[in-house]
Amino acid sequence: MALSVEKTSSGREYKVKDMSQADFGRLEIELAEVEMPGLMACRAEFGPAQPFKGAKITGSLHMTIQTAVLIETLTALGAEVRWCSCNIFSTQDHAAAAIARDSAAVFAWKGETLQEYWWCTERALDWGPGGGPDLIVDDGGDATLLIHEGVKAEEIYEKTGKLPDPASTDNAEFQIVLTIIRDGLKADPKKYHKMKERLVGVSEETTTGVKRLYQMQANGTLLFPAINVNDSVTKSKQFDNLYGCRHSLPDGLMRATDVMIAGKVAVVCGYGDVGKGCAAALKQAGARVIVTEIDPICALQALMEGLQVLTLEDVVSEADIFVTTTGNKDIIMVDHMRKMKNNAIVCNIGHFDNEIDMLGLENFPDVKRITIKPQTDRWVFPETNSGIIVLAEGRLMNLGCATGHPSFVMSCSFTNQVIAQLELWKEKASGKYEKKVYVLPKHLDEKVAALHLGKLGAKLTKLSKDQADYISVPVEGPYKPPHYRFNFWWEFVFVGELGPGTNGEL
Amino acid sequence: MALSVEKTSSGREYKVKDMSQADFGRLEIELAEVEMPGLMACRAEFGPAQPFKGAKITGSLHMTIQTAVLIETLTALGAEVRWCSCNIFSTQDHAAAAIARDSAAVFAWKGETLQEYWWCTERALDWGPGGGPDLIVDDGGDATLLIHEGVKAEEIYEKTGKLPDPASTDNAEFQIVLTIIRDGLKADPKKYHKMKERLVGVSEETTTGVKRLYQMQANGTLLFPAINVNDSVTKSKQFDNLYGCRHSLPDGLMRATDVMIAGKVAVVCGYGDVGKGCAAALKQAGARVIVTEIDPICALQALMEGLQVLTLEDVVSEADIFVTTTGNKDIIMVDHMRKMKNNAIVCNIGHFDNEIDMLGLENFPDVKRITIKPQTDRWVFPETNSGIIVLAEGRLMNLGCATGHPSFVMSCSFTNQVIAQLELWKEKASGKYEKKVYVLPKHLDEKVAALHLGKLGAKLTKLSKDQADYISVPVEGPYKPPHYRFNFWWEFVFVGELGPGTNGEL
Amino acid sequence: MALSVEKTSSGREYKVKDMSQADFGRLEIELAEVEMPGLMACRAEFGPAQPFKGAKITGSLHMTIQTAVLIETLTALGAEVRWCSCNIFSTQDHAAAAIARDSAAVFAWKGETLQEYWWCTERALDWGPGGGPDLIVDDGGDATLLIHEGVKAEEIYEKTGKLPDPASTDNAEFQIVLTIIRDGLKADPKKYHKMKERLVGVSEETTTGVKRLYQMQANGTLLFPAINVNDSVTKSKQFDNLYGCRHSLPDGLMRATDVMIAGKVAVVCGYGDVGKGCAAALKQAGARVIVTEIDPICALQALMEGLQVLTLEDVVSEADIFVTTTGNKDIIMVDHMRKMKNNAIVCNIGHFDNEIDMLGLENFPDVKRITIKPQTDRWVFPETNSGIIVLAEGRLMNLGCATGHPSFVMSCSFTNQVIAQLELWKEKASGKYEKKVYVLPKHLDEKVAALHLGKLGAKLTKLSKDQADYISVPVEGPYKPPHYRFNFWWEFVFVGELGPGTNGEL
Amino acid sequence: MALSVEKTSSGREYKVKDMSQADFGRLEIELAEVEMPGLMACRAEFGPAQPFKGAKITGSLHMTIQTAVLIETLTALGAEVRWCSCNIFSTQDHAAAAIARDSAAVFAWKGETLQEYWWCTERALDWGPGGGPDLIVDDGGDATLLIHEGVKAEEIYEKTGKLPDPASTDNAEFQIVLTIIRDGLKADPKKYHKMKERLVGVSEETTTGVKRLYQMQANGTLLFPAINVNDSVTKSKQFDNLYGCRHSLPDGLMRATDVMIAGKVAVVCGYGDVGKGCAAALKQAGARVIVTEIDPICALQALMEGLQVLTLEDVVSEADIFVTTTGNKDIIMVDHMRKMKNNAIVCNIGHFDNEIDMLGLENFPDVKRITIKPQTDRWVFPETNSGIIVLAEGRLMNLGCATGHPSFVMSCSFTNQVIAQLELWKEKASGKYEKKVYVLPKHLDEKVAALHLGKLGAKLTKLSKDQADYISVPVEGPYKPPHYRFNFWWEFVFVGELGPGTNGEL
Repeated sequence: MALSVEKTSSGREYKVKDMSQADFGRLEIELAEVEMPGLMACRAEFGPAQPFKGAKITGSLHMTIQTAVLIETLTALGAEVRWCSCNIFSTQDHAAAAIARDSAAVFAWKGETLQEYWWCTERALDWGPGGGPDLIVDDGGDATLLIHEGVKAEEIYEKTGKLPDPASTDNAEFQIVLTIIRDGLKADPKKYHKMKERLVGVSEETTTGVKRLYQMQANGTLLFPAINVNDSVTKSKQFDNLYGCRHSLPDGLMRATDVMIAGKVAVVCGYGDVGKGCAAALKQAGARVIVTEIDPICALQALMEGLQVLTLEDVVSEADIFVTTTGNKDIIMVDHMRKMKNNAIVCNIGHFDNEIDMLGLENFPDVKRITIKPQTDRWVFPETNSGIIVLAEGRLMNLGCATGHPSFVMSCSFTNQVIAQLELWKEKASGKYEKKVYVLPKHLDEKVAALHLGKLGAKLTKLSKDQADYISVPVEGPYKPPHYRFNFWWEFVFVGELGPGTNGEL
Repeated sequence: MALSVEKTSSGREYKVKDMSQADFGRLEIELAEVEMPGLMACRAEFGPAQPFKGAKITGSLHMTIQTAVLIETLTALGAEVRWCSCNIFSTQDHAAAAIARDSAAVFAWKGETLQEYWWCTERALDWGPGGGPDLIVDDGGDATLLIHEGVKAEEIYEKTGKLPDPASTDNAEFQIVLTIIRDGLKADPKKYHKMKERLVGVSEETTTGVKRLYQMQANGTLLFPAINVNDSVTKSKQFDNLYGCRHSLPDGLMRATDVMIAGKVAVVCGYGDVGKGCAAALKQAGARVIVTEIDPICALQALMEGLQVLTLEDVVSEADIFVTTTGNKDIIMVDHMRKMKNNAIVCNIGHFDNEIDMLGLENFPDVKRITIKPQTDRWVFPETNSGIIVLAEGRLMNLGCATGHPSFVMSCSFTNQVIAQLELWKEKASGKYEKKVYVLPKHLDEKVAALHLGKLGAKLTKLSKDQADYISVPVEGPYKPPHYRFNFWWEFVFVGELGPGTNGEL
Repeated sequence: MALSVEKTSSGREYKVKDMSQADFGRLEIELAEVEMPGLMACRAEFGPAQPFKGAKITGSLHMTIQTAVLIETLTALGAEVRWCSCNIFSTQDHAAAAIARDSAAVFAWKGETLQEYWWCTERALDWGPGGGPDLIVDDGGDATLLIHEGVKAEEIYEKTGKLPDPASTDNAEFQIVLTIIRDGLKADPKKYHKMKERLVGVSEETTTGVKRLYQMQANGTLLFPAINVNDSVTKSKQFDNLYGCRHSLPDGLMRATDVMIAGKVAVVCGYGDVGKGCAAALKQAGARVIVTEIDPICALQALMEGLQVLTLEDVVSEADIFVTTTGNKDIIMVDHMRKMKNNAIVCNIGHFDNEIDMLGLENFPDVKRITIKPQTDRWVFPETNSGIIVLAEGRLMNLGCATGHPSFVMSCSFTNQVIAQLELWKEKASGKYEKKVYVLPKHLDEKVAALHLGKLGAKLTKLSKDQADYISVPVEGPYKPPHYRFNFWWEFVFVGELGPGTNGEL
Repeated sequence: MALSVEKTSSGREYKVKDMSQADFGRLEIELAEVEMPGLMACRAEFGPAQPFKGAKITGSLHMTIQTAVLIETLTALGAEVRWCSCNIFSTQDHAAAAIARDSAAVFAWKGETLQEYWWCTERALDWGPGGGPDLIVDDGGDATLLIHEGVKAEEIYEKTGKLPDPASTDNAEFQIVLTIIRDGLKADPKKYHKMKERLVGVSEETTTGVKRLYQMQANGTLLFPAINVNDSVTKSKQFDNLYGCRHSLPDGLMRATDVMIAGKVAVVCGYGDVGKGCAAALKQAGARVIVTEIDPICALQALMEGLQVLTLEDVVSEADIFVTTTGNKDIIMVDHMRKMKNNAIVCNIGHFDNEIDMLGLENFPDVKRITIKPQTDRWVFPETNSGIIVLAEGRLMNLGCATGHPSFVMSCSFTNQVIAQLELWKEKASGKYEKKVYVLPKHLDEKVAALHLGKLGAKLTKLSKDQADYISVPVEGPYKPPHYRFNFWWEFVFVGELGPGTNGEL
């Protein structure tokens, strides 16, 4: 697409695939609202007070129908919003169109090039001469990264007069980032500093982004406060990863390939929360599931569910479906793919595209790529004339081939986002938050869960005062008593080799 | 039973139900050894060096076949051992007989009175004039409690000359404890002080016991170092609670009642790890499961598994099976029981017998108790002539009506115990452990898991150095990287009302 | 669409939506071939002999990718083929295009009007002046119906000179059928007689069509031999209905609505094979499933799986998803729909569109229909301003909203079809088949299953001669011994009121 | 035990293990009554009319608590009853005692020798000089066999003067049968003829017994009418086999071995109804299940549930649990057992003890048998010093190691028995039943199911007249319409090689 910003009749900027899909997007947004009780409750509770009045929020997060409901919750609370997607394949174009037409500045479409992707990110951060946004909703940390890299480059430039050099890196994507920063620097050598100054904070959605934030906190390079939304129990540990993937993995497989899952042998690489969700879905659909793991505890959990634990090498030539969920790199290499059965399906439900060796596959001599339909490619090896089916080009298959997590799951995540953004904005002047990473307290986590029970017809039991005292919690919660934290190893004074002395570093 | 200590031909003390069951016990111990690879690996690894040489260990932990394998692992490593059970119904008499005959001093039988129970506990702690044991393996904390209460009474006595007064409490069981201490005080006013002096430390098996330990740590009254074995991932969080109860709940139901679970409506009170295991087992057996919960997060988890979440009042008159798993008290009251269907089954798989209102039931006017067989009673209400079936007198039904957790699960728990005891003993003179509660480090948790994989035919994947670096963990583990702890809320700097200031108290 | 026949460059007739989708269709056909080992085995085994040489086959069966593989198996064996779909929504346009371009005369597109539907059926039967087809592959029996009604009308016309009168029926669809026949009669008063004369036989795919055939057999009006493919074990009882629907129900729900199934209350009306597949899929996805049934045996089966059995009235206002699977009519009426929750999903996976009262819904005063996307409509009731989501206009939701049963399941069904067609054609002159309904023998059923095992990596155990004798079956099968039929009630001499005398009527 | 008949104070004969267990038996019978709504409904409906007044009924059927409720239903309807067990291990001694004391003449105890077994069978048939019983309730057909063999021997004796010669057979059990008949013949050469004369008919419980009956019917040697209860849908196809075994297999495994099923590899030999129940139970308990099958249709069903299908040879040395469910012989041979892992568990849930090669095991040179407890033996091979655990001596493990099917399942079976016995007795003089095998009609099957729904809280939907007409069934059932029988292959006019002509032989 030509990279030029368009404007609505009201003058709001946007760049989307097809504005005529806005009506369709609107209808699906309305359906999603019914499935997202947490966000709708936020509108009801906070909307009248307009707490975000005056706040400029930039979001970098998959531009889907569910995100549309998040965006319109932010605007319903008074915010002004600019948005881009955080993945080149994950935008739902009708959602983007509806939001661009009705609510916020959107720069996103399904199937961006990397060049286009970063252009969109830049646009979403571009609030004009006054600096950047007040708040960022980030997913994977790319918006945060751009600002940090920008500030770093500006500092070097100020000190040394040296511009960032894209040729200094082999990483194609990072070359683009450096180019953007370099070009920005030429125009305004304080662009990212201005952004940093203005920025109240970021709330981060994913494990990946959170990992980056904690690294920056550890290095002392974090430039603004951050709230780790990922680690709310109602977000990551269970809801997004386990239940979301349990829903969206088979959805993606079926939409992309229509293959019968029952009777097939499926390999799930990694048995963390995402892997657990994927394995459960495949097993329930009638597949025989084999797990690969490095961690003996997770391996034992898989065994307790009746799953076989083997290495990829053991099963590479007999399995029908391969799913990576590790968050690590180099899991399924081209050398594995060569040995697979004809039409074996290979996909990745992890965030990054380096779990599957796409580069090795693309560069395999005389390999042939046949696109069945968008996001579904058959790669044929010359030697055997046998092919494998790769979904979503090795990227997030549930977003690339289906519609990602369903609204109800995202309602849990996004309600945490809204609460995090509210907190950052409320305390913008109080100095409460330093340049550190914070999480939401347990009682807010419980509140998010509670907002979702009514929709499912559940009735909670109430503690008596006497019972509450007996287990040492308040009647109204949080219900995991203070000592509950002791249920987890990473909190303790440790025994043995590590010793209490090294505990602090863990 | 007459409370007199007996002696084996070799002079070792014991008191068990029936020594003639020793052969049967031995055969089952040999079967269990094959199912307990972690303990057998400890014997192979540490046995030759006899690290427990000279150590006197007292255990207060269900005297079952699995515990027998633990005891003989301790003796195989050089320890001298005295043992009692930590529950009046949980002893397997053939296991007790085999150990009493072959390996250790045992004071335990199925169906002790409370009086007998505390007599046994006292015997297990009684190592003669030299004071008590060097180490304690505790389950529920009763051995630890007795020493702490004893020391407290001795201090008061020393200061004030006052003996403990059993009449000072309404609690029937605590009256017995005070009586024992009082009688001991008369004989030796420094008895418990001597024990305390000698004691190197305790390793505690359960949530309940751990809770007591942390309270004592918080109050500054903990008298010796403690290792919290309960919170090893390979013990409590998943293995004992989830997988163990998933196995032993239906086992107990079937042995006690032979009732068909399929088609029945089952209510599981509480959806923590134990409740999750129970609900899974009942659902898989074909019951329709309804959960009661106070915590909205756990409630949402139940809903995501297709379980209904209601209050006990909503379902009390239509359900067939009721299981309490809460760790709280006063869950099923006599007023609930009156409204149940004829022959509804009521049982508790939690540690204490106060989840079910047994007192209210016993005191209900004209209620009739018909013992079908040991641990299976039908209680008939006069008003309706309709009865309910109460298992194991409202106590631990899986130990009372079946044989508790299976060997494989207990092998995980008990391997943690052995490692904890080894650590305490090794560091007895180093001052490494203060009067605090410690847990085992993550890599030992992973080691315990790894010791159990081979038996199940699993093969672990090995990280390359490159991959390990990418996710920032050592190639040989522990595999959850340092930032993994950030996946949990109780570790963080908190946002919002609680604020960073109050974080320390959580 | 304008109802005019088009021609390929080679002169073959067709009418499809968009010939440019032929390449895409071809790619998906190639994928499907790998998943349809039974059909590919037929090509390998029978292709060289060209057994269908000279045979003209008309098919009336959902024009999908899987059917394309069936069609090309028929042509690979020598047949000439004309095809139409048997449902107005079930055609996959890319499949139709690929077949029309490459292999057979196709008259089918997604979203036909009833008028168009019957025009297509007529075209598929129109083999020019020489009469109709030699063989029919039928699904639901519409092609068979048209010929039977045509012959009946011609007989009346010959005797009385009376033409069929469309106004004689209220049924809109049957009016169209009568119009077609009337117009045909005017052109050629022996058209359907000629077809009947030529026709060697029909093989019927579905319960519905089979029911019609047995009724005609009972009435003595069946005009040609028929093979009931539906009742092969490898077709209907288990494979299509149970496993096919288990796959395609959630697929349809997710593609149409993206709704999270976990946590929802789903009502499955009917617990036959289709209902069992649907209920299993919903339960496994985390829904709480409630079944409605009339048959106490099926109800007891549902209970044994932990499902609640209630009436629709009991649950109409609390459930989130409703699926009809009964094969009966008037299951969900507009009066039920009015009472449902906002955005409750209502769909039918049965063959006919009269399970859901679409007529009542359409005619409800001031009801508003909002089309979210094709096959997904929200109907809003004026009184409550609350809406329900109806899928595929109350017709076959798995074909309307997704892609129907997956290839592997259809391979079982369609291999039965090929074998049935081969048998009819081989015996066309032998008089072996009378004007009756036949089924395939058990050993062919077993052969179909066996052809599908290799793909899934299964290895069968072989009977020894001694074992085979012991259970009285041949070593090479069929493996259900002669007395196995006695496992089923409908075969027996009956006891009781019905008495042996009435047995024949059952 | 000394084989002498004892008498109650009222003069009724019996021989049981321990009359002092009668009270315990009575309590469990009372519990079971609540779980057996079908039998209790029979008492309520038919009891007042005393339809069995004057009828002498002999039963040969596992003497369990559930059978006790059946027996007392027969006596409640007016019958006089004598009973023996049909398996040497299946008697529950407390049930036998309670019935012997209170209701009927019982000859049964757990752990009979074969000699004792047949003595008991003879006693149960011995109604004194007036001949045998009026009716027989048979399970496996041993009572029926004894009469048929007796009559045959008497005929030979009458014609030739030759007595049966036990030495004429190698089969140890049949030698005992011949001895009994020979001794009887000496005392009364018309003993079995008198029985045959008097006998109104038999109702048979099992597949095995039914197979024998149909063979006799086919040979023309059946001596009296028989009702095949086994093939009621509410008995065999689903309820006993599938749901009963799903309950009782894990129960037997856990009581016998306490082994953790989760994580283990389990092999189920045979995937018929029993195998399906066993595989489901093991999978749900967390085992990885591998199926062996000869029938490709059943194999495909296993694959569709995610189970691996291999041969026993493929997996014999890696599996932990082996269950035979085939109804065939020589499934697990001693040569397989030698290759198994140490402490692999081997058991048979089929009726006969020839699925597992017990003879080969017993005769294996220097094999050592260690009895852990009754019904649980460890067999150690000298070569490897490795052992396997064999349950219930290779016989019915769910009855030998646990308590068999639960009451609710047996209530379905036994209600069919009562209805069958009522029908035979009602028509004793009408000549309605010839010397053939009959089954109960479908509407009685549905009645049995309906009697069990209320207990589980189910509500049936009622057909409207219009709907009933549409699917061609009566409003009040039976609900599977006449054409439903066409859903099964063995009823049809067959296609192909077998041809219509051979259909009759199938």
